[in-house]
Amino acid sequence: MGGDHAPDSVIAGAAQVLKKYPNTRFIIFGDENRVRPVLSRHKSLEKASAVHHTDKAVRDDDKPSAALRGGKGSSMRLAIEAVQKGEADAVVSGGNTGALMAMAKIILKTLPGIHRPAIASVFPAIKNETIMLDLGANVLVDAENLVQFAVLGAVFAKAHRKIAMPNVGLLNVGSEENKGPDHVRGAAAILSHVDFPGHYHGFVEGDDITKGTVDVVVSDGYAGNIALKAAEGVGAMTGYFFKKAVRSDPLSLLGSALSFMAFRRFKKRMDPRLYNGGVFLGLNGICVKSHGCTDAVGFASALTLAVELVKHGYIEQVAQDIGHLMSQETFLSEGSYGD
Amino acid sequence: MGGDHAPDSVIAGAAQVLKKYPNTRFIIFGDENRVRPVLSRHKSLEKASAVHHTDKAVRDDDKPSAALRGGKGSSMRLAIEAVQKGEADAVVSGGNTGALMAMAKIILKTLPGIHRPAIASVFPAIKNETIMLDLGANVLVDAENLVQFAVLGAVFAKAHRKIAMPNVGLLNVGSEENKGPDHVRGAAAILSHVDFPGHYHGFVEGDDITKGTVDVVVSDGYAGNIALKAAEGVGAMTGYFFKKAVRSDPLSLLGSALSFMAFRRFKKRMDPRLYNGGVFLGLNGICVKSHGCTDAVGFASALTLAVELVKHGYIEQVAQDIGHLMSQETFLSEGSYGD
Repeated sequence: MGGDHAPDSVIAGAAQVLKKYPNTRFIIFGDENRVRPVLSRHKSLEKASAVHHTDKAVRDDDKPSAALRGGKGSSMRLAIEAVQKGEADAVVSGGNTGALMAMAKIILKTLPGIHRPAIASVFPAIKNETIMLDLGANVLVDAENLVQFAVLGAVFAKAHRKIAMPNVGLLNVGSEENKGPDHVRGAAAILSHVDFPGHYHGFVEGDDITKGTVDVVVSDGYAGNIALKAAEGVGAMTGYFFKKAVRSDPLSLLGSALSFMAFRRFKKRMDPRLYNGGVFLGLNGICVKSHGCTDAVGFASALTLAVELVKHGYIEQVAQDIGHLMSQETFLSEGSYGD
Repeated sequence: MGGDHAPDSVIAGAAQVLKKYPNTRFIIFGDENRVRPVLSRHKSLEKASAVHHTDKAVRDDDKPSAALRGGKGSSMRLAIEAVQKGEADAVVSGGNTGALMAMAKIILKTLPGIHRPAIASVFPAIKNETIMLDLGANVLVDAENLVQFAVLGAVFAKAHRKIAMPNVGLLNVGSEENKGPDHVRGAAAILSHVDFPGHYHGFVEGDDITKGTVDVVVSDGYAGNIALKAAEGVGAMTGYFFKKAVRSDPLSLLGSALSFMAFRRFKKRMDPRLYNGGVFLGLNGICVKSHGCTDAVGFASALTLAVELVKHGYIEQVAQDIGHLMSQETFLSEGSYGD
């Protein structure tokens, strides 16, 4: 029920994912009267799906606290509860981000040893792709939180990009050791010494996200969210000025028509729909947030992230790696400043 | 002596600025044997310029502390000293940023009432342009520092864009009042009540920089620097993938050749050279940092910023507005948390 084009885009996205992963089964939470007619247009998906009826939905403008209080029986809450009960392996929603995070935290809870969950996404980069977290679940974090994010991100990179030993960098204002705020330098001190499921690269800067310098960029949610939005803004502005420039004279318009193959190639590499999906990491269950305004292709990307994490056994792997991290307690307390 | 193409790009840039502002006079600090031959190719500029010889230069990889200790008599230090002595109205350099900031702080000092200087730049936006600060002079700041940055930025907007009452926003992770770290919320509490030379808009997010939602975006140097670099990274990646896509088939290449007018229009609106120049605000003197790797057009942009600030009487205006801010002390102490 979440997002601008639901349930159509959600169901069409699920149909695409079923073709790629034929063993996937879906439980669709929402208004049966709206879901059934759309589902009947996708026969294979209809067979692979159960519909769990509810006409209650969290609204986009509900505050997280209101959604927690009044959200009982809503499609969002029921879907998260299905993961908690073991009826589903993952939940994917295009609804209200704040409400989804608040409910997922309360119902699924964080994994033992993880103090805070983080939101991660995959971004295009000149070299490969970059996984970045936290994109805004936490404004203030301490050094230990960042180290836990490094583990969460590294295991995500293993699942998503099948890399044995992902390179992990800490987002900072410079690459020199003495640069940046205490919590970032504190995390660097810990990551340089502990054994974790990745290789610690050192500090990276904002432009390293798109350069692809490392596989995983770790940040607090304050700088991470601002960097993400600033990057999205540049993308939107570039597109706006480019279209405007092309449409201002007929020769350029003709030229751009001839360049259709280039535009297709370009779009394929940078298409935000192919990178849709914010994964909530650190919870005892897999929860993925899709952009509300995406289409079937975008929703399929978010679903694919969930399927990949389930197939990889993400939760079990993280639980094990966090346990190993905690067993190296000396390093953690030595390097832990900036709380 | 600073930057990759000095002294050629510096001198050619000055020649461009002299055409636009014929009353400008230049003092060029550097190796006379390298400066004179280039200067002799620009007759009007040669007449409007004095050359102050020194063969000592701060290197790009010098640490700020080393530049402070060993930089006596260097072109950078002499140029800053000329401002301090009143021989020059402003200094513009393409050299080492950290060294320039450290020397400028020591020699020019901050204005009374300003605790820390900030680095500001102008950025293209869909609607008009956006001035943003701090881009990395300070990692950690408190609420009062951000309020002072708001004054520094608002007066800069008046000088640069001739706006009577610039809109000022605080960079944050959301627009709701309860969002964000203490120092940002503290600054919001103060700016909502004090009389300062702008209109306080509220919180803005990363994508508001390029939307042009406000005239001035105020941030600490941690988030500000990361946002700036992330934005630059997206620009670089977009250009890279676009060129690659166009060059991959002959029809697209032909199409892009036909679109030359569109590319020219697009470039004119987004050309980073036209937005070159980081202005050090809050010091008792005007100091502008040019990108080291820019050309004459880029260096002319940095020089133009300096000329505009001088013409506007920036220092005197800020001194007056900061004095007025300090006279409203009650608000400052009420709203001042997050230190």
